Amino acid sequence: MKHPNVSITLPDWVESTIDLESTYGSDEEKMRLAVELSRQNVLRDTGGPFGAAVFERGTGRVVGVGVNSVVRLNNCTLHGEMVAFMMAQARLGCFSLKSAGGHEYELATSCDPCAMCLGATLWSGVTRVICGATRDDAVRLGFDEGPVFPESHAYLKERGIEIVHGVLRAEAGAVLELYHARKGPIYNG
Amino acid sequence: MKHPNVSITLPDWVESTIDLESTYGSDEEKMRLAVELSRQNVLRDTGGPFGAAVFERGTGRVVGVGVNSVVRLNNCTLHGEMVAFMMAQARLGCFSLKSAGGHEYELATSCDPCAMCLGATLWSGVTRVICGATRDDAVRLGFDEGPVFPESHAYLKERGIEIVHGVLRAEAGAVLELYHARKGPIYNG
Repeated sequence: MKHPNVSITLPDWVESTIDLESTYGSDEEKMRLAVELSRQNVLRDTGGPFGAAVFERGTGRVVGVGVNSVVRLNNCTLHGEMVAFMMAQARLGCFSLKSAGGHEYELATSCDPCAMCLGATLWSGVTRVICGATRDDAVRLGFDEGPVFPESHAYLKERGIEIVHGVLRAEAGAVLELYHARKGPIYNG
Repeated sequence: MKHPNVSITLPDWVESTIDLESTYGSDEEKMRLAVELSRQNVLRDTGGPFGAAVFERGTGRVVGVGVNSVVRLNNCTLHGEMVAFMMAQARLGCFSLKSAGGHEYELATSCDPCAMCLGATLWSGVTRVICGATRDDAVRLGFDEGPVFPESHAYLKERGIEIVHGVLRAEAGAVLELYHARKGPIYNG
């Protein structure tokens, strides 16, 4: 019995259409990038309506981005946030962004993280999370977000992770609606 | 800015030293495989003291295994359970084990899943989880398990996932102690 080499890549359109060289200053600018990743992922039929990006805090430099890749890559773990963490850590050569070159890092995600991604956020080493659409927005369209409770967010906060909800919620939510209108598969309903 | 191809592989010793062709009948036999993966991962210095395996229910066939690979592959998401899910889904060519060829699947993991892995368990499509060492065993050695509450397990149970705790707990816990004695890094303390 042979186990495969599991290869995780971004869709080709990411490098060619998304501006990864600019710096992103405000929470709204960072969220706009995450939402654009989610929207393009839907329009180009490469996955679910979720995008995320990891930024160096202070400078606003992008260090890694992700789009939902569950169906495209046959891998239930590949939510947008997970792919963004993997890409950021691969680029920086570290398993925790806490120890990466004297900087702190933050995640912008187009929707509140599910239970898996919230756990991964803790392990990732980011110190701040900016969220767009809410859990309720996702659940309304049939997505399950898993066992996330108010205590779950409190747990991260106690460990020094700030979480900001509802940044550009309408724009982020509109991508969920777009996916719904195009009858995208609910892979974890 | 170029994003890498993130490549996820098992250490070489897995295919050559672990019996992946036998069938594993009882919960104890399945756990013994998960614990052996965790022990070899420590002895061979390829990662943290955690191993996991996905089995076809009924036949006891192994469909994918995982060992903690966080430090080896510079990737905070690569807990043993996550790697096992990825390998099983890559081998079966599906993003949910719920829809894979008319079978049900179960996970054996050498330690209670952390918050991330518990979330992933829900998305993986397994219908049963067999756990060895407990959350307390891991926390005692300095590992954080993240925001997992009694309601978290109840959430999975309500969605048809049975979770069995404490199978071969002493053997599984002994590997945590072994890692501690060898001063293995606590990558998420």
